[in-house]
Amino acid sequence: MQNAQKVIIIGSGPAGHTAAIYAARAGLTPVMYEGFMAGGVAAGGQLTTTTEVENFPGFPDGITGPELMDRMRTQSQKYGTTIHTETIERVDFSSRPFKVFSQNDPATAILAQSVIIATGATAKTLPIQGFGEYWQKGISACAVCDGSLPIFKNVPLFVVGGGDSACEEATYLSRFASRVYLVHRRDKLRASTIMQDRVLSNNKIEILWNSEVSAASGDGKKLGSVTIHHLLNGGNENRDAGGLFFAIGHKPNTDVFKGLLDMDADGYLLTKPGTAQTNVEGVFAAGDVQDKRYRQAITAAGSGCMAALEAERWLAVNGIH
Amino acid sequence: MQNAQKVIIIGSGPAGHTAAIYAARAGLTPVMYEGFMAGGVAAGGQLTTTTEVENFPGFPDGITGPELMDRMRTQSQKYGTTIHTETIERVDFSSRPFKVFSQNDPATAILAQSVIIATGATAKTLPIQGFGEYWQKGISACAVCDGSLPIFKNVPLFVVGGGDSACEEATYLSRFASRVYLVHRRDKLRASTIMQDRVLSNNKIEILWNSEVSAASGDGKKLGSVTIHHLLNGGNENRDAGGLFFAIGHKPNTDVFKGLLDMDADGYLLTKPGTAQTNVEGVFAAGDVQDKRYRQAITAAGSGCMAALEAERWLAVNGIH
Repeated sequence: MQNAQKVIIIGSGPAGHTAAIYAARAGLTPVMYEGFMAGGVAAGGQLTTTTEVENFPGFPDGITGPELMDRMRTQSQKYGTTIHTETIERVDFSSRPFKVFSQNDPATAILAQSVIIATGATAKTLPIQGFGEYWQKGISACAVCDGSLPIFKNVPLFVVGGGDSACEEATYLSRFASRVYLVHRRDKLRASTIMQDRVLSNNKIEILWNSEVSAASGDGKKLGSVTIHHLLNGGNENRDAGGLFFAIGHKPNTDVFKGLLDMDADGYLLTKPGTAQTNVEGVFAAGDVQDKRYRQAITAAGSGCMAALEAERWLAVNGIH
Repeated sequence: MQNAQKVIIIGSGPAGHTAAIYAARAGLTPVMYEGFMAGGVAAGGQLTTTTEVENFPGFPDGITGPELMDRMRTQSQKYGTTIHTETIERVDFSSRPFKVFSQNDPATAILAQSVIIATGATAKTLPIQGFGEYWQKGISACAVCDGSLPIFKNVPLFVVGGGDSACEEATYLSRFASRVYLVHRRDKLRASTIMQDRVLSNNKIEILWNSEVSAASGDGKKLGSVTIHHLLNGGNENRDAGGLFFAIGHKPNTDVFKGLLDMDADGYLLTKPGTAQTNVEGVFAAGDVQDKRYRQAITAAGSGCMAALEAERWLAVNGIH
């Protein structure tokens, strides 16, 4: 039987890479499965879908999300992390060592003494009429990844949502669009004041209050219009639309852990508060997969460090390290 | 009466500055009291006493502690944080708005709707005979701040401790010393494997097991020798010593909060696990002042972000923001 790895890290955002840096420097020779479009997102996680990151401490001039993740990946490898660009599709935590299975070779168990789960969360969408037909042909869930594509230049764009992400994405798209419509079901935004202010003072953005997008249509190749449903009077209205962006929250990437680890009603992994410990000893969780409250790159990174330190101590206590 | 600040941040390490960056970007115009040698440490906190930081994610080539803190300070100010180089010597959380008092003007209350405490922790020393006479004349609690001073070049240096810090400091000092003696009370180190390996494989470092330093002596101007007390046989031995470095842990900087906030037996502030909330609503704590378990720059930064997001939400819920 193959030797079990001391630590396997599933996921490759700030939590996964910070866990890797700490585990590697602790001599645990961690093995990371960074995923291949796991949860619909590239290796590196949600930050790879972000342009400028201004609030990660240590970068006063800002840094792009992909560059920050490249730097973390380089740092993980420098200290001895082995990285596989594969997605873990199944795990077995019922006996020790634990077993994880990669999509690339689903029949072969990869053995692990401890596992750090940092699989993150993925943006939500709504199953409106026409969604399947125009997904990635004008419909997107990531303004900052797709917004600068030629098809979105100088056309009206619609953003669905009312929180910080929706305001951020509307602001971002206003650089490219002829006009941006922020479609929100309620009569006030949930976003923070600073983000609301940015939207309200941007004369290229208009908010459609008490409204939702009910359908998308076009010529079959490309989105051409959306149907706006007015919640107060029940009316519907067609509007020309070059793009439709969902910014309505996230779903934690925990499907493979269902029934194996404790989670909340939304599917977020439950950790003992103030730690990275799941309900299975030796299995730790870090980052957005266990955090619906803060969900920042820096909090994810901090929790990745915690997970690695706890994994190291757990292995030591159990005489494995 | 003066207007109350929305958020006052006490402390200026990674926790304080990350809180400042987030609070500033949330439009809360935070005011930071970064301290003036508060807790015996310069503004910027313990990282300013560190040379190379290799485990802060995003810096694959490493970065010096002072440079990292300079960058965070620049970032805090860029988004609108006001920084005062003053130490808060007294607080009053018994009524709202809260009151804090600076050493520079102890009679004037500075008003705050919310307070984020990020005062960190300070290195411990031992009151050995001769300590007062030779403190800063050969005795130090920070190898990496002082180790490269000329008085420590090519002389025998003693490090007291057995944890990661002690091993790190011994390794660092071995660059300058003729020889480094790591003095430890027990017969094995508490340090992590990677740090133990570094010490054990360094032929300029010798470990004095089951020993303690009981006295320091010299010519009155400069340390010249230390007395090593052997715990197993009770014997004492004088050794030539050019330097003596304590690396035996830390004390949280919470004296001004005694009796006002809940703390544990060691004086660390208690927060609701998984949050930055102290037992006083509107008062938050982040970083090493509330963390004896992880104590890393990246975990401190993550908790600073949490404190700012919680302060923002608390102010919003209370109609202050």
